[in-house]
Amino acid sequence: MLYYLGPRGSHTERAALKFSELMGIETTPADSIYSVFEEVLEGNYGVVPTENSVEGSVNLTLDLLFENQVRILAETSLEIRHSLLGFDEKKIEKVLSHPQALAQCRKFIREHGWEAVATKSTSEAAKIVSELGDPRLAAIASKETGELYGLKVLEEDVQDYPNNKTRFILIGPEGKSLSQQLGPPVKTSLFIELENVPGSLYRALGIFAKRGINLTRIESRPSRIDLGYYVFYLDFEGLPDGDLFLELESYAKFIKPLGSYPVF
Amino acid sequence: MLYYLGPRGSHTERAALKFSELMGIETTPADSIYSVFEEVLEGNYGVVPTENSVEGSVNLTLDLLFENQVRILAETSLEIRHSLLGFDEKKIEKVLSHPQALAQCRKFIREHGWEAVATKSTSEAAKIVSELGDPRLAAIASKETGELYGLKVLEEDVQDYPNNKTRFILIGPEGKSLSQQLGPPVKTSLFIELENVPGSLYRALGIFAKRGINLTRIESRPSRIDLGYYVFYLDFEGLPDGDLFLELESYAKFIKPLGSYPVF
Repeated sequence: MLYYLGPRGSHTERAALKFSELMGIETTPADSIYSVFEEVLEGNYGVVPTENSVEGSVNLTLDLLFENQVRILAETSLEIRHSLLGFDEKKIEKVLSHPQALAQCRKFIREHGWEAVATKSTSEAAKIVSELGDPRLAAIASKETGELYGLKVLEEDVQDYPNNKTRFILIGPEGKSLSQQLGPPVKTSLFIELENVPGSLYRALGIFAKRGINLTRIESRPSRIDLGYYVFYLDFEGLPDGDLFLELESYAKFIKPLGSYPVF
Repeated sequence: MLYYLGPRGSHTERAALKFSELMGIETTPADSIYSVFEEVLEGNYGVVPTENSVEGSVNLTLDLLFENQVRILAETSLEIRHSLLGFDEKKIEKVLSHPQALAQCRKFIREHGWEAVATKSTSEAAKIVSELGDPRLAAIASKETGELYGLKVLEEDVQDYPNNKTRFILIGPEGKSLSQQLGPPVKTSLFIELENVPGSLYRALGIFAKRGINLTRIESRPSRIDLGYYVFYLDFEGLPDGDLFLELESYAKFIKPLGSYPVF
């Protein structure tokens, strides 16, 4: 079974359907990114958002990738177009949506003087607004989600920046591979914790630079020891050669490879 | 006037009081990080959280530092101890707090099966719970905030990790310096946008490495052009020598210095 951050109609469902068609398995919504990881640890597959082009990393996804024995099996990205959904734009006082979507429409919400209220997902926001039927409430989600929950599309394309895309990853439990490859692996991800000395990141990046490897993403997450201690999440193009991880290990306190995988 | 992310009783107020005593000016709460920046652009000073040792960067603060003509004038950090505040632990269904605090107590909230509800600040959560007086609600905030709003301390130290600290920065409008220096500058911050080619970050970090400069923080924020394009926020120890920014500029598409400042 393939679990995704639901409820039905979420952006993640669209990404999950791309994977499930290729894999020939069924999809089920889960109520949080946490729950998706729990299902994966039980032996299932999962789809979660990992990064948005405007708001940046989904911290919870990165932290759970770090904490759990899971692997990235594939990646896809989708264009995200947000609509304002509700009953009557003039009566709106509060706008509900997922914190990432609220952040992607920050200027739009502020210009109208509405209060932003966080929900677990964009589709949950639409569901709540639909169930409460209160014209003072509106949701930010996709047009399709609005139709699914019987809400009026009050305004389209309300995201602050036109190029709004989100990356989603397909994850599985460590040690379990897909019954069929979805495509040739073209990207590799890992976590690395470095010694806390001047130049340690520079030296680690040198290992990639001398191989001509293109690092496409670097994110720091707190290592939770204290302020100033970080774990780095890295994405790079291609596959690691035989020595890359060995050489990294000589500079690192800790390395956690997350897999090499295809991108759709 | 010194504006801080309020309401009264917030963690940011504690940081603001440290600065205001040194500066000899009065403090006023503002209702969002946005509002603090607006007051600073009007010629006031502001205090906002910038990073937590468990949950990481405060994205909104970084993004507003990038977008606005403001400078960092000083930094301080505080230990953050969260308490569960309310009426009766057995009746709790929903826990209210700022998203950062909810994330810092993620495991605690999940173990109890409560629903997490985001508010603008930890003290706003306490204020709402106090006003509604509903035992199904609880807030996560400091013990002192609980006392301020007449709530019972149901449990202390509910943060998931013991070493929970937050960094706060004092900001002012560009071009306006403090009437008296608060202390010798020991840290420098900047934003840098690099060419999107393999090795560009490595080469930029080399400029710091060859000077023996200790980079203490590196954060990537999306540049909002598309997925895969980033702006880096950097902190380093000490002051830039005369050539540092010049040399960085030869690698960068864009540099925005945020100031050199004391740390308390």
